Amino acid sequence: ADVEAGKAKAAVCAACHGQNGIAQIPTYPNLAGQNEQYLVSALKAYKNKQRSGGQAAIMQGQAAALSDTDIANLAAYYASLPAGGK
Amino acid sequence: ADVEAGKAKAAVCAACHGQNGIAQIPTYPNLAGQNEQYLVSALKAYKNKQRSGGQAAIMQGQAAALSDTDIANLAAYYASLPAGGK
Repeated sequence: ADVEAGKAKAAVCAACHGQNGIAQIPTYPNLAGQNEQYLVSALKAYKNKQRSGGQAAIMQGQAAALSDTDIANLAAYYASLPAGGK
Repeated sequence: ADVEAGKAKAAVCAACHGQNGIAQIPTYPNLAGQNEQYLVSALKAYKNKQRSGGQAAIMQGQAAALSDTDIANLAAYYASLPAGGK
């Protein structure tokens, strides 16, 4: 996976999940330092409409536009950020 | 929400999500320092079977046994732990 490509792709994610992967909105998850494999699994579940409830509809729409490569790169990028945003 | 009650209830969660909220298994999410409101939303989505795919079947089963108070307490507990487990 390509962390730099993930960072570039993450520009749209930052509106809710923060520039540093710390969410701007308390109903959204922090992503910084999250496990890479979990992030891949979660993004694929949103893309496949296997998650609903809460804010999932937003993520279904966002993930629909992502290729498997995009998902791998985004997961690598957020996993690489320091947990807690520090 | 009652952080101490959440800590007591979290004993079973620790097998996968770690004693300090840092997952022992890379396909599982870290919970330490996650946003409390997001954790409530995610647990309710599992309980309501609104999440499938990945390891969601396990969490559907776990969350089915949780009351709304349990969920609030667990969310408060994990949100209170330091991100990154430090």
